Amino acid sequence: MTIEANENAVRVGGGRIRLGMVGGGQGAFIGAVHRIAARLDGHYELVAGALSSDAERARASAAELRIAPERAYTSFEEMARAEAARPDGIEAVSIVTPNHLHAPAARAFLEAGIHVICDKPLSMNVAEAQDLVALRERTGRIFAVTHNYTGYPMVRQARAMVEAGELGALRLVQVEYPQDWLSERVEAAGSKQAEWRTDPARSGAGGCIGDIGTHAYNLAAFVTGLRARELLADLSTFVEGRQLDDDVQIMLRYEGGAKGLLWASQVAVGNENGLKLRVYGEKGGLEWLQAEPNALWFTRLGEPKQLLTRAGAGAWPQAARVSRIPSGHPEGYLEGFATIYTEVAAAILAARDGGDPEAGVIFPTVEDGLDGMRFIEAAVRSSKDGNVWARLE
Amino acid sequence: MTIEANENAVRVGGGRIRLGMVGGGQGAFIGAVHRIAARLDGHYELVAGALSSDAERARASAAELRIAPERAYTSFEEMARAEAARPDGIEAVSIVTPNHLHAPAARAFLEAGIHVICDKPLSMNVAEAQDLVALRERTGRIFAVTHNYTGYPMVRQARAMVEAGELGALRLVQVEYPQDWLSERVEAAGSKQAEWRTDPARSGAGGCIGDIGTHAYNLAAFVTGLRARELLADLSTFVEGRQLDDDVQIMLRYEGGAKGLLWASQVAVGNENGLKLRVYGEKGGLEWLQAEPNALWFTRLGEPKQLLTRAGAGAWPQAARVSRIPSGHPEGYLEGFATIYTEVAAAILAARDGGDPEAGVIFPTVEDGLDGMRFIEAAVRSSKDGNVWARLE
Amino acid sequence: MTIEANENAVRVGGGRIRLGMVGGGQGAFIGAVHRIAARLDGHYELVAGALSSDAERARASAAELRIAPERAYTSFEEMARAEAARPDGIEAVSIVTPNHLHAPAARAFLEAGIHVICDKPLSMNVAEAQDLVALRERTGRIFAVTHNYTGYPMVRQARAMVEAGELGALRLVQVEYPQDWLSERVEAAGSKQAEWRTDPARSGAGGCIGDIGTHAYNLAAFVTGLRARELLADLSTFVEGRQLDDDVQIMLRYEGGAKGLLWASQVAVGNENGLKLRVYGEKGGLEWLQAEPNALWFTRLGEPKQLLTRAGAGAWPQAARVSRIPSGHPEGYLEGFATIYTEVAAAILAARDGGDPEAGVIFPTVEDGLDGMRFIEAAVRSSKDGNVWARLE
Amino acid sequence: MTIEANENAVRVGGGRIRLGMVGGGQGAFIGAVHRIAARLDGHYELVAGALSSDAERARASAAELRIAPERAYTSFEEMARAEAARPDGIEAVSIVTPNHLHAPAARAFLEAGIHVICDKPLSMNVAEAQDLVALRERTGRIFAVTHNYTGYPMVRQARAMVEAGELGALRLVQVEYPQDWLSERVEAAGSKQAEWRTDPARSGAGGCIGDIGTHAYNLAAFVTGLRARELLADLSTFVEGRQLDDDVQIMLRYEGGAKGLLWASQVAVGNENGLKLRVYGEKGGLEWLQAEPNALWFTRLGEPKQLLTRAGAGAWPQAARVSRIPSGHPEGYLEGFATIYTEVAAAILAARDGGDPEAGVIFPTVEDGLDGMRFIEAAVRSSKDGNVWARLE
Repeated sequence: MTIEANENAVRVGGGRIRLGMVGGGQGAFIGAVHRIAARLDGHYELVAGALSSDAERARASAAELRIAPERAYTSFEEMARAEAARPDGIEAVSIVTPNHLHAPAARAFLEAGIHVICDKPLSMNVAEAQDLVALRERTGRIFAVTHNYTGYPMVRQARAMVEAGELGALRLVQVEYPQDWLSERVEAAGSKQAEWRTDPARSGAGGCIGDIGTHAYNLAAFVTGLRARELLADLSTFVEGRQLDDDVQIMLRYEGGAKGLLWASQVAVGNENGLKLRVYGEKGGLEWLQAEPNALWFTRLGEPKQLLTRAGAGAWPQAARVSRIPSGHPEGYLEGFATIYTEVAAAILAARDGGDPEAGVIFPTVEDGLDGMRFIEAAVRSSKDGNVWARLE
Repeated sequence: MTIEANENAVRVGGGRIRLGMVGGGQGAFIGAVHRIAARLDGHYELVAGALSSDAERARASAAELRIAPERAYTSFEEMARAEAARPDGIEAVSIVTPNHLHAPAARAFLEAGIHVICDKPLSMNVAEAQDLVALRERTGRIFAVTHNYTGYPMVRQARAMVEAGELGALRLVQVEYPQDWLSERVEAAGSKQAEWRTDPARSGAGGCIGDIGTHAYNLAAFVTGLRARELLADLSTFVEGRQLDDDVQIMLRYEGGAKGLLWASQVAVGNENGLKLRVYGEKGGLEWLQAEPNALWFTRLGEPKQLLTRAGAGAWPQAARVSRIPSGHPEGYLEGFATIYTEVAAAILAARDGGDPEAGVIFPTVEDGLDGMRFIEAAVRSSKDGNVWARLE
Repeated sequence: MTIEANENAVRVGGGRIRLGMVGGGQGAFIGAVHRIAARLDGHYELVAGALSSDAERARASAAELRIAPERAYTSFEEMARAEAARPDGIEAVSIVTPNHLHAPAARAFLEAGIHVICDKPLSMNVAEAQDLVALRERTGRIFAVTHNYTGYPMVRQARAMVEAGELGALRLVQVEYPQDWLSERVEAAGSKQAEWRTDPARSGAGGCIGDIGTHAYNLAAFVTGLRARELLADLSTFVEGRQLDDDVQIMLRYEGGAKGLLWASQVAVGNENGLKLRVYGEKGGLEWLQAEPNALWFTRLGEPKQLLTRAGAGAWPQAARVSRIPSGHPEGYLEGFATIYTEVAAAILAARDGGDPEAGVIFPTVEDGLDGMRFIEAAVRSSKDGNVWARLE
Repeated sequence: MTIEANENAVRVGGGRIRLGMVGGGQGAFIGAVHRIAARLDGHYELVAGALSSDAERARASAAELRIAPERAYTSFEEMARAEAARPDGIEAVSIVTPNHLHAPAARAFLEAGIHVICDKPLSMNVAEAQDLVALRERTGRIFAVTHNYTGYPMVRQARAMVEAGELGALRLVQVEYPQDWLSERVEAAGSKQAEWRTDPARSGAGGCIGDIGTHAYNLAAFVTGLRARELLADLSTFVEGRQLDDDVQIMLRYEGGAKGLLWASQVAVGNENGLKLRVYGEKGGLEWLQAEPNALWFTRLGEPKQLLTRAGAGAWPQAARVSRIPSGHPEGYLEGFATIYTEVAAAILAARDGGDPEAGVIFPTVEDGLDGMRFIEAAVRSSKDGNVWARLE
């Protein structure tokens, strides 16, 4: 079953899922990504938004996106209230603001009975995240966190192969995410993207670690099925005047004895988005690189290395299920992101029908978001305490 | 200006472009690709279809795609007539049938005043293609042919760099497109995709050359700005019992003295969609590979090779304009395909407003389709005549 | 058995093989390569040379190479005569001159009873080559032609895999050898290497085709075990004022029905020595790239692509036999070249002992050199006659 | 000036340097590598050896290598004494034994006035290494340690580029060296190479860290010009029953504020010899991979990535100086190793003539060996103490 086939399955009820968005007004980056992801497989219709707290910008942004003027809000509280009251109100909301608004916005929509798709990191701290977990349980709503790399087909296959024991007992997890866009102090030179990401008030206690370190950590957890028990971290700030870390080195200790090494950097000149995961077990090894996402390298101990390709001869059903086109025609970042949206759509449709929203679908949840916050807090704590072991709790 | 920004520009008139589709019912491959491409940037709404000539399949396919039952047709003639008569009738149609129906369907919609987006190759022969060129001129409608590889950002950049003289006078064009999916006689073993592609009645005089050879030829023409004057071809059929060619070797002679070599194959085991273009001039060389489409290799004579990336430091405006996300996050085949749709949307909107539909947009047209048919016919003729030079005319 | 072990086997007789060299004086390129190749495995000792026709340069070059002054000659005729008369005279000679001297020098040494290792192309034309074949048969000497790419371990493995039927019946042979060092008229700007290679009096009727085209042709023949029956060629001279071809496009027809495409160029900006061979059969495909010679890509139809590495898990005995170090530590061009010398050393030692010099060793012979000359002549003829089929005879 | 030219410069004195070898008898790996490296550029003649402590094996090994029977020793003490007494005694010795014999053997030859070329790691501990440093100073002999990766041309260029400030102030050093050959307990299954490397009595306190970790550490130091002040290490033994570490994770703190991350592993399935170095500074970044050693990736902040090739357009004199052949024809591991030998040869020749042995040549010395031992000891200490910061002292 491919995503394209899934598209059809989501037809039930006669219409697309009515979606709202918080954040993502003109000039934002990730908002546009979420909108493309929502459109790509055709399961959503964007009908409401609190796209900006600036009234004029909110209005103009909404107009561009064909959102009716009366559903262009300037506050998410108002939006949650108003939409919940409409018979044709939104069923789900995408939260694509800077980090400090994730939790307040998510709370508002959960309490209004609306499903939540929230960007990462989930919140400003573990406490907020725990509240969201509790609230989600109480409300029974669906809560997805867009650790989008888990949507790549070959990441799905890697997870399935590990789970099936193709690598044997795991020993090593090497994950890295180098970038270079913060090599200079661009936050002082007008970069909106850099401004809030380097501002503790909007980003939280972590800079690089929250922005991309959590992605790396989540990817490793997703593929290996392991969560870390403890870590030893060193967070650095290389660019003078910057308030948050721009480089992260972390040793990880997983349950069961596997060891990990995580490196994330935003000052590694020559790297765009070099997310790379390598997993080694007693019997085999896997390597996946986000920049060439349609490939997965697999070696069985004592055999030649194999190049497995999305939808190619070595593709597993878990990869094929979320592939849209034949192998050799690359799918990319937006397709992986769209897969998260489509999985959530299937869950929402199942919930509409009273079914089990999690049956047969895979997407990162609020619990993964909480795990990410524990990772960030432990790393910050370990680093501040002089690079000592800290538990994720 | 990015594609995402373009999305907004297409808002004029208050709604999406109403799109119909001919072909692309359940089980088809390229129809689904066209639908994703139409959805991705949000400029189209699929509202009508003659998705299959089988009434039941047409109906079921339409239902899955949320097309109203009364707009689910079983013949494109009927669809063209009926939609032209509706006040809310389709403004454009996507033709995604096997080759033999391209021209008849395109004719029907052009005559009904409806814009056409047609898959390649354009028709069964040059004569049909010439008729379509004439008809398009007479009707003034927009006519795009989905040589989709021209939508890749780094292909756009390659074209711009050649045009700007970065390579100097061109000398050599090496283009190849190896696949392996027809290495065995799968058309006799139930592959629907293979069946019609290897059947002269539905595919025309060319097999491999029509299916992928034209893509390679078109890509070379698009990037270099050169059209071939003559060619010398050898078409082979390696798989016993097959009626059409499954491997193509062609020498090309371009206007201005450049020489080309084109290889396309569907029996090259180990290749998925290995489309690759290399262009060499007096001052520089370029290399692009469809499987890694976000990169463009460029060498100035006497300098180190550069890796130019979509939206990276070496990206030109022509690439950035059709990029959706920052570099390092790969865009793929569907994004390139969507760019064709979005460019056509801009043209349709401009036409709606009485403007010049071709101003500032780039997409392959019916003339490119005709050029492709000339290429196929010349190659078939050259090969049949004993591998002699044949003019494209 | 590895090359290192072979080293030991060549100990018989108590000493290294006494080697002479014709050409290769100061400033030459390929002479130094031959010397390193002869030294690397320790089977030869360079004791005589006609390194230059210029007396002073011959003397100085010899001194640098620790050749005794009385064995530093200025003519190969004299050298052949004098060395044949010495009790400690050379047993083998390396001929590393420009092409026009290959045949005369080889003749002189064969007639003096001395084994010959000659650079390629073998001669100025087919007639000369045929004479050498006849002379070698009459004298019974060993005659190697340094198509050195056949010394790479993974090329050996590719050949063995084809021979063992891993690819099934062969269909396609794609071979290319792009360079860019002659993109400008460097022969008029002081490049000694370019001067003679672009001079018909010293290079023969072929430029690019003789210099690198024959390597590509030979590599394809070596791996596939096929010789071409006929070819259709187009030789171009892109650089104004140049007398010989600098780009070559050739269609090849092999015995048994396989088809080949060969491209060699010295004006493809951005290519250093891009020799690449791809072979496709009914059941599998192989790809090898000289720039990454320790790898061989292999795909069985319907299975994932495998990366076979020299001395790695997928290495065959034919590759391991000529490997010196474990996999992952790259061997390169000089090692492959040295393997030719070592294979020839084994043959010479076997001949010393009255054994079969060709038993168990592999190196290109004078017959391969003749085949290369037939290839060149046929290509030149085909191109001059208007790109028509020409037989290799 | 190329290595080939260097070859000639070493002619002074009328003969090759007389070399002896300790260890490296039949079946050894690294001894054969040293011999090829010594032969490749023609500066050495192997004339004596204590190739094995087993008399029969020592004799047979010597005979294979054409060493005269009277110079085939069974103990290095005897060899040092006897060779020092001969008028034609060896001038230099290569020590290629397991680690525990490095220091005793080196001492014996230094005291006999013979230059030493010693494999790494230098000794069993820091104390031994310090003694060797002192002894070398006292004797004035040349002492090279074969951290052979420093012989690769593009490693030389990387060092030169850092030194010239092309990267600006350094921030990050990422170095890794994954292998997989110890993924199982092969030392218990007959692998001689594995046996002594996993035996503390012969290998010292470090397993993986001594075998390949030191190489990685040395490479980083060589390229960056930085030595680490302190480190935090975690040494793991994943294979049950093994006595030494088979995986190493290390955080490094360099003088000047740069931070490093080092990973070495011998249980990372799918890796052969994946030594990789990345260096990032304020203005640029470099990447080098041992498996593709002829390339160096360089990015200036804000510019496209460049692929610099050995002897290509972007090659610096420091790379060209140690290149033997034009770019595009790969040089490999043995050439890099040979460059160390050739640099040492130049030093020995200079010493012969009373000149400065270190003028204009580059090779790792006993001080680098001592630094490596400090690295190993600090890492073992850090790991045992619970992964705390340890100074290299």
